[in-house]
Amino acid sequence: MSGSEETKQNKQAIFNISKTGNFPDWYTEICKLAELADVRYGVKGFTPFPPWSTMSMELMFDYLEDSLQRRDHLPMIFPTVIPESNLTREAQHVEGFTPQVFWIEDYGEDGKLEERLALRPTSETAIYPMYSLWVRSWRDLPMKLYQRASIFRSEIKSTRPFLRGREFLWIESHNVYATHEEGKAQVLEDLEITKEVVTGDYGIPVMVFRRTQWDKFPGGLNTYAADTLMPDGKVIQLPSTHDLGDNFARAFDIKYLNDDNEFVYAFQTCYGPAISRIYGAMIAVHGDDRGLRLPFKIAPYQVVIVPIFKAKTEEEVLKYCQKVKSKLQKAGFRTHLDNREATPGWKYNWWEMKGVPIRVHIGPKEVQEDKVVLFRRDLLKKETIELKGITKRVKALGEEIDTTLRSQAESNFDGLIVDADTIGLIDDALNKSKIARSPFCTIEMEGLACAEEIKDRTGGEIRGTRIDKEEVTSGVCPVCGKMAEEIVYIARSY
Amino acid sequence: MSGSEETKQNKQAIFNISKTGNFPDWYTEICKLAELADVRYGVKGFTPFPPWSTMSMELMFDYLEDSLQRRDHLPMIFPTVIPESNLTREAQHVEGFTPQVFWIEDYGEDGKLEERLALRPTSETAIYPMYSLWVRSWRDLPMKLYQRASIFRSEIKSTRPFLRGREFLWIESHNVYATHEEGKAQVLEDLEITKEVVTGDYGIPVMVFRRTQWDKFPGGLNTYAADTLMPDGKVIQLPSTHDLGDNFARAFDIKYLNDDNEFVYAFQTCYGPAISRIYGAMIAVHGDDRGLRLPFKIAPYQVVIVPIFKAKTEEEVLKYCQKVKSKLQKAGFRTHLDNREATPGWKYNWWEMKGVPIRVHIGPKEVQEDKVVLFRRDLLKKETIELKGITKRVKALGEEIDTTLRSQAESNFDGLIVDADTIGLIDDALNKSKIARSPFCTIEMEGLACAEEIKDRTGGEIRGTRIDKEEVTSGVCPVCGKMAEEIVYIARSY
Repeated sequence: MSGSEETKQNKQAIFNISKTGNFPDWYTEICKLAELADVRYGVKGFTPFPPWSTMSMELMFDYLEDSLQRRDHLPMIFPTVIPESNLTREAQHVEGFTPQVFWIEDYGEDGKLEERLALRPTSETAIYPMYSLWVRSWRDLPMKLYQRASIFRSEIKSTRPFLRGREFLWIESHNVYATHEEGKAQVLEDLEITKEVVTGDYGIPVMVFRRTQWDKFPGGLNTYAADTLMPDGKVIQLPSTHDLGDNFARAFDIKYLNDDNEFVYAFQTCYGPAISRIYGAMIAVHGDDRGLRLPFKIAPYQVVIVPIFKAKTEEEVLKYCQKVKSKLQKAGFRTHLDNREATPGWKYNWWEMKGVPIRVHIGPKEVQEDKVVLFRRDLLKKETIELKGITKRVKALGEEIDTTLRSQAESNFDGLIVDADTIGLIDDALNKSKIARSPFCTIEMEGLACAEEIKDRTGGEIRGTRIDKEEVTSGVCPVCGKMAEEIVYIARSY
Repeated sequence: MSGSEETKQNKQAIFNISKTGNFPDWYTEICKLAELADVRYGVKGFTPFPPWSTMSMELMFDYLEDSLQRRDHLPMIFPTVIPESNLTREAQHVEGFTPQVFWIEDYGEDGKLEERLALRPTSETAIYPMYSLWVRSWRDLPMKLYQRASIFRSEIKSTRPFLRGREFLWIESHNVYATHEEGKAQVLEDLEITKEVVTGDYGIPVMVFRRTQWDKFPGGLNTYAADTLMPDGKVIQLPSTHDLGDNFARAFDIKYLNDDNEFVYAFQTCYGPAISRIYGAMIAVHGDDRGLRLPFKIAPYQVVIVPIFKAKTEEEVLKYCQKVKSKLQKAGFRTHLDNREATPGWKYNWWEMKGVPIRVHIGPKEVQEDKVVLFRRDLLKKETIELKGITKRVKALGEEIDTTLRSQAESNFDGLIVDADTIGLIDDALNKSKIARSPFCTIEMEGLACAEEIKDRTGGEIRGTRIDKEEVTSGVCPVCGKMAEEIVYIARSY
């Protein structure tokens, strides 16, 4: 294994926008140039996803479903539409979601449905009437089921591919338990899945919060959610999990026959990781000024081979490239040989922009010496190795790349939390694209007025109290001056 | 390996309806009892799918996507909604599909969309405007992309889970070529995929037809479709593939820059295997009077272990079962240990009804002798083998079961085609739940009147001319008496 050096094709770069300097333009441009999403579809908030983003999202779904299935969750499929009368059965839920619903009433030339149908904004009201039929006795519990689905929300501020749209792709898991304790344990298991998959597999660090009472899931008892930080200092909500208590069981009549032969209400939780949104966060968290940087685990192509030849060496170089490709494919790596009519330099820049983790350069010299040059996208460094060691080295390099991406993201994260115990300091922190950590009166409903004042004066939202970290509470609420009951995090958000 | 014998629990059967005697009731009951679809959702034609059917359909998607990807098709994801103005751009297409569209116009409390949106009934008019932007030069071709999606059709006669509903799950592949010849070659590749996956992996035999001109895809040149035969003698259409010529390229302006630097129209094909419908056909084709018989390749559990014990042997039997389970799981088999409180006999019947291909019975005798009893669902036979040979035997047995299911289905198929060259003979054949093979004037538009007369007098539809079989044409059309130009197949259909 030889030494490494930095690449030197900055001048030819296909993509070269400062991510930190102008994040919104950077994001828009990379979505377009890397062919991740096409905003020209013609309906606000609805965006086709070409293969490059779809293939990664499919891999992301696979990791998530695997993590769920290892914890005994089974898949199911529910209809995309929900009868209006179902939606209205839980009062807070209907109030929270009705403004976001697309309605279907007409069909064909002039058909009218007997009852309006909602395009599902989330599926509690589709699924729980069936759970009421499926759950009979304690033997049926726990019931841990999930579906992969598109969901639809009409009410949007501004749209942005993956991060904010009217249709997004998610997994929703809906669980039923005999006791509230088991439901609370499920909340912790969901957070474990989030850490395992979102941070472990996709490399995205998160902070986990118990949300305020005015920002919880409509109809639930408590919402717990993972936030990550975008390059512009705004936070974005990734998976959230809801402790529903027995609220929905009462609204939808989900009862089980207990040991004493009595029918009693069950307890429920639900969990909703939105893969398309997490994909958007992944672009933003890992990308750099040359384009995407995809984690090895979820890159559509993990390795791209670029042949380098003068005319007369073409045949032997290509033959060697084919050999390398088949060696890597046999070892299970997603490998592509870029045989287009273009210069190697142009191809280097192209695949850097596309975020491919490892490139293999092969020219006459490598053929002669039975070697290959490996280039790693994360650090823009290359090394020359013997061909015979390639599969072992690619495997190790893939793991190194994922570790590097995750730890770079984590270190960005750590530096961005600032202690602030006055409105002025909170405002300062937010203006510097940071997150403010502040004492606060209470995240129960009585704290709402203070939260609104903070929002009005700083643009910041209270994300809740950390549940993945011990905090020592002291000080007073920066608005009402009462003794603080909690330490909260305040940020601008997507 | 010891001998085998037939099972003897007929009297206890959980499910015991004659499939051939009363197919509609058999189908309804098995969907309910095996928990495949729940018709109590409350909206006509929309049906939740619990885990048992979902897990098999997921495996069916995997085989199909693998087959597509090995032939260089890549996945993409398009929005579920289509602007009304897109739908109207191809005249025949809009005429064919408008009667089937669900429309969205309202959102939230009182919002109105600027333009009505259709829930996609199929995605040509969503995808092709984008293809018009994505295809620039011959270098972009061929473009072979597909999506996994739910589609929606409002116009339904009667509904039946999986076979006929208002929402179904499919793959749609949309391909663009420089020449019509390549498009026609794609049609043949699609048929190859159908044979490989639908027959090879799911075990469902098909006949492949070129459809009549009055029964083709609206807007296309020709439709080629695979039909299979249901136990009641009706045929059902499984995957179909459409040669679109350059019709849609003209309507949606899909042009490429050719070698001579001219922009010319591209040629297209599309292919749409509906997994939920194929799943329904699979139930019907393979099932028997005791319930489902699932192919080994697509069974959610390939092996179920049933412990048999008297009270004091419980612990050692369960330990041995766990060992067998972990051995089978390590070998990659989807294995379940049924540890519920119920008699072994009840469990045998339960898993026969659920269609699990292989059962393992383990009692004190097996533990003592280091053996297991294997039971195969297809032939209802059992055998005793040494534990050490179990993974090898399960693998072989799985392949044997799939071969048996396929060849049983094929032999049912062969006996059901009857030559018939008069209306009377066609009617006779159909009344005996058979398919009539008949000379016919022409499947071009001029033959429509004759086809309508056949339909009126026999209830049979012309499925088209076989393209997977050589036919010698002779005789005259049974309606107009003209010299027959083709041999067609006539059947009642779903």
